[in-house]
Amino acid sequence: MQQQISVITLGVSDLARSRRFYSDGFSWTPVFENEEIIFYQMNGFVLGTWLTSALERDMQRNGLVGPGAFALAHNVSSQEQVQPLLDKLASAGGELLRAGDAPVHGGFRGYVADPDDHSWEIAWNPAWSIDENGHVTFAM
Amino acid sequence: MQQQISVITLGVSDLARSRRFYSDGFSWTPVFENEEIIFYQMNGFVLGTWLTSALERDMQRNGLVGPGAFALAHNVSSQEQVQPLLDKLASAGGELLRAGDAPVHGGFRGYVADPDDHSWEIAWNPAWSIDENGHVTFAM
Repeated sequence: MQQQISVITLGVSDLARSRRFYSDGFSWTPVFENEEIIFYQMNGFVLGTWLTSALERDMQRNGLVGPGAFALAHNVSSQEQVQPLLDKLASAGGELLRAGDAPVHGGFRGYVADPDDHSWEIAWNPAWSIDENGHVTFAM
Repeated sequence: MQQQISVITLGVSDLARSRRFYSDGFSWTPVFENEEIIFYQMNGFVLGTWLTSALERDMQRNGLVGPGAFALAHNVSSQEQVQPLLDKLASAGGELLRAGDAPVHGGFRGYVADPDDHSWEIAWNPAWSIDENGHVTFAM
């Protein structure tokens, strides 16, 4: 079986508000959008932002809540890029959770919540390579 | 800025129980593990399963809850693979949320929750290509 995740789907309550965070904050361009879902082509998979009500219907699972016990990370290529991106995301509708600082395991990171309370880590991790297509490889 | 997600980190309460779901259910092999985190090298990014208490400390955000308003999807290459994988994941500690059936937009999918209540969609989507490295490309 492929060690593969095809899609990350985040439930959102206001698609325009969410789009501002991802398009203006991260500067990401949708590959598809309609009135209930936006898709972004990512590094080897797809990110979807979908109305939570529609996601619940599709899952046949009601009562999804936030903040969920998960985090997504976007890695940048230098320590100096972490805080400016956290600030940009906060000004695009996010909420700063943790200002950038150095964890004991090395590197530099901070956290911001998106407008639907989904947690994002912005990190500089010098050990993990990122190729020109954005593909990230684990390393110790 | 790269349109890139580096890591998906899922909060877990029992690492051995979670490992059984991902290693026995999905047949995925960890690239790193210690007593609080397991990493899996995925298709262009890294999946981490981390004790929720440690994730909360790192985020400086307490009270993470489940089920969160998100879903991860693993796509398979034929409709016939969907239900057997859902069944295998359920027998590895997951809970079936929705048996496989055909959504109006085409394809075939079902949902299962992992032992920590994180939602997984298992889907056959004939429109989206998956290359030999598991890299998934959006298409209409």
